[in-house]
Amino acid sequence: MDVADANRTAVERMMSARPMLQTVATAGEAIPGMHDRLLLHAGPPIEWERMSGPLRGAVIGAVLFEGWTDDEEEAARLAESGEVEFAPCHHHGAVGPMAGVISPSMAVYVVENVTHGNRSFSNLNEGYGKVLRYGAYSSEVLDRLRWMNDVMAPLLLEALSESEGLDIRALLAEALHMGDEGHNRNKAGSVLFLKLLAPFLARVAPDPTVAAAVLGFIGENALSVLNPVMAACKAMADAAHGVEGSTIVTAMARNGTDFGIRVSGIGDRWFTAPAGTPEGLYFSGFSSADANPDIGDSTITETAGIGGFAMAAAPAIVSFVSGVPSDATNATLEMYEITVAEHEHFTIPSLDFRGTPTGIDIRSVVELGITPRINTGIAHREAGIGQVGAGLVRPPSEIFEEALLAFAEKRGI
Amino acid sequence: MDVADANRTAVERMMSARPMLQTVATAGEAIPGMHDRLLLHAGPPIEWERMSGPLRGAVIGAVLFEGWTDDEEEAARLAESGEVEFAPCHHHGAVGPMAGVISPSMAVYVVENVTHGNRSFSNLNEGYGKVLRYGAYSSEVLDRLRWMNDVMAPLLLEALSESEGLDIRALLAEALHMGDEGHNRNKAGSVLFLKLLAPFLARVAPDPTVAAAVLGFIGENALSVLNPVMAACKAMADAAHGVEGSTIVTAMARNGTDFGIRVSGIGDRWFTAPAGTPEGLYFSGFSSADANPDIGDSTITETAGIGGFAMAAAPAIVSFVSGVPSDATNATLEMYEITVAEHEHFTIPSLDFRGTPTGIDIRSVVELGITPRINTGIAHREAGIGQVGAGLVRPPSEIFEEALLAFAEKRGI
Repeated sequence: MDVADANRTAVERMMSARPMLQTVATAGEAIPGMHDRLLLHAGPPIEWERMSGPLRGAVIGAVLFEGWTDDEEEAARLAESGEVEFAPCHHHGAVGPMAGVISPSMAVYVVENVTHGNRSFSNLNEGYGKVLRYGAYSSEVLDRLRWMNDVMAPLLLEALSESEGLDIRALLAEALHMGDEGHNRNKAGSVLFLKLLAPFLARVAPDPTVAAAVLGFIGENALSVLNPVMAACKAMADAAHGVEGSTIVTAMARNGTDFGIRVSGIGDRWFTAPAGTPEGLYFSGFSSADANPDIGDSTITETAGIGGFAMAAAPAIVSFVSGVPSDATNATLEMYEITVAEHEHFTIPSLDFRGTPTGIDIRSVVELGITPRINTGIAHREAGIGQVGAGLVRPPSEIFEEALLAFAEKRGI
Repeated sequence: MDVADANRTAVERMMSARPMLQTVATAGEAIPGMHDRLLLHAGPPIEWERMSGPLRGAVIGAVLFEGWTDDEEEAARLAESGEVEFAPCHHHGAVGPMAGVISPSMAVYVVENVTHGNRSFSNLNEGYGKVLRYGAYSSEVLDRLRWMNDVMAPLLLEALSESEGLDIRALLAEALHMGDEGHNRNKAGSVLFLKLLAPFLARVAPDPTVAAAVLGFIGENALSVLNPVMAACKAMADAAHGVEGSTIVTAMARNGTDFGIRVSGIGDRWFTAPAGTPEGLYFSGFSSADANPDIGDSTITETAGIGGFAMAAAPAIVSFVSGVPSDATNATLEMYEITVAEHEHFTIPSLDFRGTPTGIDIRSVVELGITPRINTGIAHREAGIGQVGAGLVRPPSEIFEEALLAFAEKRGI
């Protein structure tokens, strides 16, 4: 199959994937290959020594959350000694925002692409401020995680089992008409998520106080739907993976140290280079000196044709990430240069309902010297602090060049 | 005070008004001057003889709902005979979408402008399809109204009494950043409304089934928030009314036969002319031959600087009302020509966060020959059928000319 045909096949699989949020389960139960002493993390593979502050913080928090010790120094020692193992979320069909740490007893969303049958997973969103995904692990952070696991997750499970599953692709399509881009702005998607769940949650809650608490927690967090959306994007991207001869990117992910990509026709090999630092707007009291390099699996959204690629749908986001509304439009227009399709389901009203730029072709990235645009949160570079801002970043260009070389070699060109 | 100063005063009062949704009550209890045999209706004053089909249908439905008779012919006779009295919603601080019929025992939202102390009212939104506000009055319509009155309204009342009131101006400001224009597209506003109410509703519901039913009813109706929004706009517009020397429009309303306006500096006199028929898109099986002339108090939204005036914020609306996204932008841009201010609280991201065009100056309308743009639903011209489409319309230009003449006379010019 020639490359253009292979890419068409890959992107058509990506767009025809229909990710349904089916249930909630613990990571240990649901995620293939998850085991007792394994922590999943965002981005390409990395060992403790090279982990950045926020990822280390999240690892310590997860060890404490699992009860493997109640001492944070001992937690760090366990992580360093190899007694705790690490693997990328992506190696287990999962994705996690920012540090992306998923531990065995954590609740995860289970998404199934009902078109092709593959499944994907993501953890539950904690909200803003001091949260594990930004490397915070105080008792407040752990208490919230326990409430999410013990109170919210069982309710979500029951609510979802009463539903017929939530069509996240349809939700995203609607949210893109409501000012979201699906990565850094999920305001509309999160209230749509609440709307779909609310009647079920009210019906299955053990008492009205619990119902009110869960409805409040989901409703007040404008990122509630980010994790199901990421799992949905993972399911869509995975559907496009492994097409012989395709140069389409099927994963972009950062562990806070390295930025990595995978390509459909090259298999499971990562191409990595040091992650850049986002440029954007900082919360009061913080500056770029506090910023950790780019981190998180949330770039799966751009991989699937939303996020930074759909910024034209979300002009209001510039007040969060910097710039003016025309920058948002231009970001999307530029991404058409390096993608092979316009999405069949995700459209942008202000561009006359044009489909979002979908399916990054590494050949175009290299040829045109245009790297993907990414919207992202910015983590403090030290463990324990949390989010300090939000902004824009691009992957290092050399990983696309290396991938293209590897592709050429594989094809014997 | 010269006219420019008076207009500045009026529009500043309009923009500084802060409408809070405080409670729900029956119309008879809450609305000043409401009495046992009075039906309020949309638009300027009108008697039975001149009422259009959908308004007559809604009147018949309200008479049946009140139990004044259980026979629809007798209901029509009561309306015709003068045994039932009629008054515009606007004469009682109220507004209602489409037919806008409010009867004494119907539940209404109570909004208070906490800046200036004036109150306003609107009925509860029934959803789509066969509904009273479009002139349908079958048993299905009346049963739904009874459920809304007997089950949903008491719950809303209790939920609101647990809250500190809902800031509808803040909700609208957010919804305008989420693809709504606040009149014909209230998708985002309605889910934000649900989000704010959900925890309270869950807590006060007598049982989980009722909680689920009310959460489902509000969540599935993308116009749920239209009526509180209209009451909020009425509270804002009323704050601008009665400023001596002001040529700002403080009410635009249609009863299905006539289009009427009121002007801040002229007092309570209506200037009316036959209502036009909207141009737009029709539901399957219907055409412009089925359309009733323009109807409803919902033009209070345009009066307050949103709706058709904020269409640039809602490019996706063109798939509902006809046109392309640039038409939506141009509609807003044109409205800056006939308004005196850019709204301090309502901004449009895609226009670099410019405030919406606010405060229609009848002098500019007459001078430039540009009439206001209105987004609207289209009712079937016969009673009992319902909505047949949605589109765009403008008021008749002569009412602005007459108002300007009356203003000049009053000022002795």
